[in-house]
Amino acid sequence: MLQAYHGKKVLLVGGLGFIGSTLAHPLVELGAQVRILDNFQPDHGANWHNIGDIRDKVEVHVTDLRDQYALRQLIQDQDVIFNIAAQTSHSDSMVNPFEDLDINCRGNLILLEACRHFNPTARVVFVGTRAYYGSPEQTPVPENSPMHPRDIYSIHRYAAERYHFIYHLHYGLPVTALRISNIYGPYAQMAHPRYNVLNFFVRLALENRPIQIYGEGHQLRDYVYAADAAEALLLAGVHPDALGQVFNVGSGAGVPFRTLAETIVELAGQSRCEFVPWPEGALSYDVGDFIMDTTALHQTLGWQAQTSIREGLAQTIAFYRQHHPHYW
Amino acid sequence: MLQAYHGKKVLLVGGLGFIGSTLAHPLVELGAQVRILDNFQPDHGANWHNIGDIRDKVEVHVTDLRDQYALRQLIQDQDVIFNIAAQTSHSDSMVNPFEDLDINCRGNLILLEACRHFNPTARVVFVGTRAYYGSPEQTPVPENSPMHPRDIYSIHRYAAERYHFIYHLHYGLPVTALRISNIYGPYAQMAHPRYNVLNFFVRLALENRPIQIYGEGHQLRDYVYAADAAEALLLAGVHPDALGQVFNVGSGAGVPFRTLAETIVELAGQSRCEFVPWPEGALSYDVGDFIMDTTALHQTLGWQAQTSIREGLAQTIAFYRQHHPHYW
Repeated sequence: MLQAYHGKKVLLVGGLGFIGSTLAHPLVELGAQVRILDNFQPDHGANWHNIGDIRDKVEVHVTDLRDQYALRQLIQDQDVIFNIAAQTSHSDSMVNPFEDLDINCRGNLILLEACRHFNPTARVVFVGTRAYYGSPEQTPVPENSPMHPRDIYSIHRYAAERYHFIYHLHYGLPVTALRISNIYGPYAQMAHPRYNVLNFFVRLALENRPIQIYGEGHQLRDYVYAADAAEALLLAGVHPDALGQVFNVGSGAGVPFRTLAETIVELAGQSRCEFVPWPEGALSYDVGDFIMDTTALHQTLGWQAQTSIREGLAQTIAFYRQHHPHYW
Repeated sequence: MLQAYHGKKVLLVGGLGFIGSTLAHPLVELGAQVRILDNFQPDHGANWHNIGDIRDKVEVHVTDLRDQYALRQLIQDQDVIFNIAAQTSHSDSMVNPFEDLDINCRGNLILLEACRHFNPTARVVFVGTRAYYGSPEQTPVPENSPMHPRDIYSIHRYAAERYHFIYHLHYGLPVTALRISNIYGPYAQMAHPRYNVLNFFVRLALENRPIQIYGEGHQLRDYVYAADAAEALLLAGVHPDALGQVFNVGSGAGVPFRTLAETIVELAGQSRCEFVPWPEGALSYDVGDFIMDTTALHQTLGWQAQTSIREGLAQTIAFYRQHHPHYW
């Protein structure tokens, strides 16, 4: 199925960050013509090193999703558009809800309006998050669960997902949306923990600093290795049965938060876990246990996560051990 | 319970339109100190005539929800804030999604930020809509149903509702949200049908023009008389059990769309119904049958709709028959 990417024009909007870079590599291998758009907003994860090994095989435009005229040029004649650009910090969205609105809502409207008017047949894959589900009423959580967002970020990202289906319903844009669980792996920014605590733990371990866990760390999480998730995203961009659909992308299994931290410590061979009380305010963000129901993705696209936590973490640790000067 | 409004300072944000004006009258009667904020955006329904009979008993500020400095002044020392301001046209939101975003999302963030910083103890009642539910999977529709928005408006209004609960969760703002079904009654703008087809039908009948119904008109709707809904809103502003809750506000009963149109024709004693095919694109907005589950509101606040459709329509027709030069 992924051979369909050979010769295809693929645009990665927000393509130099964690997920975009994880997609760019297999796309180049598959023979796609990869165009990357990224605004290099400080802290947001864009990193030239992420594509250092494929720099001459991809076309990069440093511009912003919200630059409507640039976007019009860059989306034209593209076959598949991966919409990955986002402000992804829960806490930043509370500190500056207006900027979160501007990027995560207005930016997506600009992209969809551009697609509607200038390339209405391109497949659009919206790369979203489990965050909309918030504190689920039951686990595993299927796609048709009610939403319980717990921060401004989650509200806006859900709105952005829904925009895609409005443009599908009213204008026929061929869209697919994915909701990714807790993702980890190479290419993530590690300068601060505001986007991805998990990867930040790897940094702490490699620096031999203690990993602080709030409370007991018994809450279950659904961890997915980025390269696995990328495969699901790629399928979503070409599989005919993905059109107009939403899919959870996760392992489908729950692992205690503390187990993950302890595994990082064990595999790194250094650092240690420290259990500390929840800081004031932090519990407002916690969603309790979370496991995804990934049945739909498995049944429709034939995908399931392949990489075990140990294997994924080992690869992640090896990557950052080698490349850390580029990431922190 | 509503006697609690005596002497209370009550702000109606977007208070000169249909719902705001319907609230202002009982509030004045109950002895509240009513302050009204409205931006008089053309087409949006603000109408001085709506408060003609209570003009000397309310304080009016012509300003915009998005004017953060004005808002800071006007919310201070208020006891209850009814947040009613909105762009409410489904079709306008598709034509100009950016303006819808600015009013329905950014405007609400500005209000909540102002409350958080300058009046965090005021009760805030968000006056929302059934629109988020979109095409429900089952009827009657309870509050915890999954959302299926079918236009940009519905996405943004749902986001705005969720904002309120984020500010409740993180900052303790005492909020309540209501989702109103198909509402009709006096004080609505009738210049165009983009906000409220139902009231517009009353105009057509009074002008002895035919009422066009797309398709067969068999789809069920849950119609609620505005004065009834206003009572639910008022309860939500003072009832302790309403804090942090969402309530459907509707009749809880389904009436075929065509029955409503036929009743208007019958009560007006003129005009007629015309059945025409669905125009291209219009079906994208249709949600099929819709009936609200109003159990929560009844059990928690002791409210239920009192006015029958015939009685409500008769009062509505009488109002516009007398006052129509002020409405179209």
